[in-house]
Amino acid sequence: MLIALDAMGGDHAPAEIVAGALLARNELGIEIALVGPREIIAAELARHGETPTGIEIIHASEAIAMDEHPAQAVRSKRDASINVAMGMVKRGVASSFVSAGNTGAVMASALMTLGRVHGIERPALGTIAPYTETGVLVLDVGANADVKPNYLVQFAQMGSVYAERVMGVRNPRVALLNIGGEETKGSELMQDVHGRLSKANINFVGNIEGGEVHNGRADVVVTDGFTGNVAVKVTEGAADFIFHELRGALTSKLRYKLAALVLKPALLQLREKMDPGTYGGVPLLGVNGVVIIAHGASDARAVRNALHAANEAASSGMLDAIRSLAKR
Amino acid sequence: MLIALDAMGGDHAPAEIVAGALLARNELGIEIALVGPREIIAAELARHGETPTGIEIIHASEAIAMDEHPAQAVRSKRDASINVAMGMVKRGVASSFVSAGNTGAVMASALMTLGRVHGIERPALGTIAPYTETGVLVLDVGANADVKPNYLVQFAQMGSVYAERVMGVRNPRVALLNIGGEETKGSELMQDVHGRLSKANINFVGNIEGGEVHNGRADVVVTDGFTGNVAVKVTEGAADFIFHELRGALTSKLRYKLAALVLKPALLQLREKMDPGTYGGVPLLGVNGVVIIAHGASDARAVRNALHAANEAASSGMLDAIRSLAKR
Repeated sequence: MLIALDAMGGDHAPAEIVAGALLARNELGIEIALVGPREIIAAELARHGETPTGIEIIHASEAIAMDEHPAQAVRSKRDASINVAMGMVKRGVASSFVSAGNTGAVMASALMTLGRVHGIERPALGTIAPYTETGVLVLDVGANADVKPNYLVQFAQMGSVYAERVMGVRNPRVALLNIGGEETKGSELMQDVHGRLSKANINFVGNIEGGEVHNGRADVVVTDGFTGNVAVKVTEGAADFIFHELRGALTSKLRYKLAALVLKPALLQLREKMDPGTYGGVPLLGVNGVVIIAHGASDARAVRNALHAANEAASSGMLDAIRSLAKR
Repeated sequence: MLIALDAMGGDHAPAEIVAGALLARNELGIEIALVGPREIIAAELARHGETPTGIEIIHASEAIAMDEHPAQAVRSKRDASINVAMGMVKRGVASSFVSAGNTGAVMASALMTLGRVHGIERPALGTIAPYTETGVLVLDVGANADVKPNYLVQFAQMGSVYAERVMGVRNPRVALLNIGGEETKGSELMQDVHGRLSKANINFVGNIEGGEVHNGRADVVVTDGFTGNVAVKVTEGAADFIFHELRGALTSKLRYKLAALVLKPALLQLREKMDPGTYGGVPLLGVNGVVIIAHGASDARAVRNALHAANEAASSGMLDAIRSLAKR
């Protein structure tokens, strides 16, 4: 169960990626292939004083930067770490792939190298919102800006599989993100999707409004990639804003500063709970392999958590379950 | 400059509505017509020991509940407070209308009674996010679940007028909410809109991603009513969640409780800043009259702030400016 890890992906690569790999190996006993330029990775491992056991280096001469054009970079840099690692998954050498790199490039490389699961029309990118014990899976959050009704039905089915198999939710409640509760509410597209989801073989609990996602009424929230991307990013922005303002308020007076010092552990714990890195990695569902994407800002802990998610996903039979969806 | 105020609209009507009217009259010297059942309003005013000066009661025998079907209720209850007040604006008896009631009913009544400004294809509902000194105007946040490209161009133009005239922003920066920075990013619809906005007679600053709205890079953020509604509501939900968790964390240990007591004023101030009621009211733009919608949960202060916004909007020449947009 070797996991291929993109050593060159993310804002803090390779240092935090390599550190995260070591954490995962030590804490979870996961075997990892660090993919990227051998000398760079070896130097990073040496900084930790490690003679790698349970960690191997797979050489890839190139890296795709966070701001490169995804599809172009994936096509032109055939020996990029993302492409090399994806090839390992394709050949069955690795059980799964984790990257904190250019999300668009990971998606493009996954489509090009692994392809879609037979019968799945479009892959979907999920994310996990920290509103419940298990988290709320929201998908699609950016793979598909333009959608057809049936894509969303498949997102719902794939999301249900992921929530059940990987997040450990029994009979996951699936809701459609919409701007009203009743089936006649929302855009024409979403009214159509609502009707289809009612007949799909999932535990569909109806529409959910934006203001209800945090209350835990659904385990899986289905939307198009445009709305989902905006929703996730405005939420992150609002959380950043609140914590920034909070910091400002708590340091505005001396007596506040002293009180804030006492509260620091509680505040840090809350900040961490809201941090996308806590769940570590989010799945790209519908491609023919297990691909987990970590937040670009991932630190070692987030990388460790993403590797954990990949390990769970690879060993859960999730991919086979998605393959059999399309056969129904 | 009499403002018609829906005495029966909102979760805390009529008590908080009447209290808000008194606040606005006392603090801002605004003249207000409280619209609703005469006895109920008179009793409420009597509780404040007020012989109304500067406040009159306009009788309306019915009220539309928050959960009634908007268009049906507006059509069947001709003597509902919303309809009666809208008629006052139509006849020029009132300069503007404020309601914390059923948003859909206010929109339906506005369209039915006032109609659209000639040349404006669809009205848009704005909201004001508390991220900057003046606030960031986001529109549409729910009037139009399905849009055509030109609607959004008009939303941008109307939003620009409102930001300049009512919010006091000089040469407002207008951005398009999208899932990538470049003009080639996002849905087909938004790519089309981007091109049109580049040629529109506004200060268009390009796409803005969901994670950038809070950073003050734009004064006006344009989107369709589906995405905008979801964005605003998930943001409110996330803020509620964070403050709820914060409360939980700060009361989890005795020493936290004591420190939190010291910080209470700062925390309340931040909570208030994030409260939709702080800006009080948001405009329904494109209808042929000044209509300000207050949050359903409005308390007296929020109602007072909404009356302030209505007063500013009515005296700013905003409506004439929107009328002349369509003539260009």
